[in-house]
Amino acid sequence: MIKTIYWTSNNKVRLIDQTRLPLEEVAIDCCNHHEVADAIKTMKIRGAPAIGVAAAFGVALVAVKSRASNTNELVREIDEAAEILSSTRPTAVNLFWALKRMTEVARAGSHLSVARLKSVLKDEALAIADEEREMSQAIGRHGAKLIADGDSVLTHCNAGALATVSYGTALALIRAAHAGGKRIHVYVDETRPLLQGARLTAWELTREGIPMTLICDNMAGFFMSRGLVQKVVVGADRIAPNGDVANKIGTYSVAVLAKENDIPFYVAAPVSTVDLSIEGGQDIPIEERLPGEVCEIRGRRIAPEGISVANPAFDVTPARYVTGIITDRGVVYPPYEETLSGILGKARSKT
Amino acid sequence: MIKTIYWTSNNKVRLIDQTRLPLEEVAIDCCNHHEVADAIKTMKIRGAPAIGVAAAFGVALVAVKSRASNTNELVREIDEAAEILSSTRPTAVNLFWALKRMTEVARAGSHLSVARLKSVLKDEALAIADEEREMSQAIGRHGAKLIADGDSVLTHCNAGALATVSYGTALALIRAAHAGGKRIHVYVDETRPLLQGARLTAWELTREGIPMTLICDNMAGFFMSRGLVQKVVVGADRIAPNGDVANKIGTYSVAVLAKENDIPFYVAAPVSTVDLSIEGGQDIPIEERLPGEVCEIRGRRIAPEGISVANPAFDVTPARYVTGIITDRGVVYPPYEETLSGILGKARSKT
Repeated sequence: MIKTIYWTSNNKVRLIDQTRLPLEEVAIDCCNHHEVADAIKTMKIRGAPAIGVAAAFGVALVAVKSRASNTNELVREIDEAAEILSSTRPTAVNLFWALKRMTEVARAGSHLSVARLKSVLKDEALAIADEEREMSQAIGRHGAKLIADGDSVLTHCNAGALATVSYGTALALIRAAHAGGKRIHVYVDETRPLLQGARLTAWELTREGIPMTLICDNMAGFFMSRGLVQKVVVGADRIAPNGDVANKIGTYSVAVLAKENDIPFYVAAPVSTVDLSIEGGQDIPIEERLPGEVCEIRGRRIAPEGISVANPAFDVTPARYVTGIITDRGVVYPPYEETLSGILGKARSKT
Repeated sequence: MIKTIYWTSNNKVRLIDQTRLPLEEVAIDCCNHHEVADAIKTMKIRGAPAIGVAAAFGVALVAVKSRASNTNELVREIDEAAEILSSTRPTAVNLFWALKRMTEVARAGSHLSVARLKSVLKDEALAIADEEREMSQAIGRHGAKLIADGDSVLTHCNAGALATVSYGTALALIRAAHAGGKRIHVYVDETRPLLQGARLTAWELTREGIPMTLICDNMAGFFMSRGLVQKVVVGADRIAPNGDVANKIGTYSVAVLAKENDIPFYVAAPVSTVDLSIEGGQDIPIEERLPGEVCEIRGRRIAPEGISVANPAFDVTPARYVTGIITDRGVVYPPYEETLSGILGKARSKT
């Protein structure tokens, strides 16, 4: 089993350096929240649920290593660390969700001793990681029912074990369907510019013997138009209450092509991906990353020097293209204004 | 001015090695039809009109260098060379069109002396190159009228000077609009796997100071959905009489996204790209190229070893997505069954 990120027995955060996959499988240890923030920023770890866990672990590192002499000082340190961690990447809401949860626990524990609060914060981070692990399994269970024996499923980017603690979101249900004996085949969009499909999804599926074909992003429409794709499943970085979905750049194009070819388009994501503080996709900030990611591939220049480049890392798929959203609490369908708030009510009453 | 391919004074075919652009500008000389065939196969020269000219030049090389003692022998050599050249790439019809024209001229001249027929064949190849040059200028003139001052135009792959003898097809009208004083901006799809957009189109536009932004293929939909693209213009490798268009893989996706966002989608191509021998896009063979083009970029491995890869080099855009086809004889609109045959009648009566 792939262990994307975990807390080590000597209080470090160990994570697979995803920038070096698939050529090298290297784990790195983060000893403080600055190292965690750097790992998120440079995409050594990426994927909305995984960076939520990384951020929570970053806060926990501050707690266990703090030399604060009183609880107020510790809470202030936690707040400062959360500030730094929250400035790493703007689009995935799980990051802010996990940090909010950690800072609220810190504040709620301000009557505790320093030693006790440290322990509470570490436990909270571990609980978030555990919940994300269960979340993946639940998405797998709910989503696998939507996949028929013999289906070819197209996915974009990596919504796999590497985007979560393990198991994945979109890939969780592909794993579950495969484990359940369904014959499935996966079309993997390579996902420029950083090639998360070619590097990460292809690596995950190959490791587990799930049949797949790697394609360039611009080939997805071709295979859909030839009737070779039965379902599309992707992850999400943020979901608006109206069902608009922010996900890796190119997701919108895949959704439009799926609709044009009458192929169901599913989004798989934990309920923590839903952002109740916004109204629709227009409120989701889209991260613009450095031009070098487009102009260079693995250190090789592929375009003339000095040209103008755009590099939006995400796009927004309007709810009207989304057939269903597969969450850890079940699958919801339009109208999302009603069904998402219904499932969120369930989730919150459980928390 | 970019001279993609030309006949040298010492009877060689000189062409820009496009596999080395944009990092190196290197011209290579082909001395016989085998070297020309290899240049086409390895995509040192590519683009439907350009490979038509290359093939004609390949046949002319056989003619001028032949040691045939009689005309029948020369005609047989020409037929054999045409056979070899026609097996280089299957999708672009201009290749077969140019070879048919050369072999027909050879057969029609079987009553001539060997020396006379050699000269006739060389002149025919030079005439094809001249006509392609005029074709580009004509497409530029007709197409520029469709571009408004201030437009942002999205293009896919390279339908520029490098895809023709010079000036281009899709880029011909962009050049003409720019030269005519219209302020335009070009979104350039990088065009995986071989990156003709990033390497070739970006190079051409930068050389001429035409404002452009390089994007990954999967970003085209994002910019369309934000209202930042007013027109899409692409080239074509083969057009069916019903208006279905085969072009570089990814063109279909761009066309679907344009339609979804109410953006006009134009195809720019000479009438020699229309294939009267077929009925529709379903009859166009799609070239499948080697997996290495997808798994490696400029020699760097980007995916796990041993995985399954698909690499269709072209796709077919059904006529219903095509707003208009900009030919050297004017712009035609649906119903293409009527308008294309009308313009082909004109073209043929002129030939």
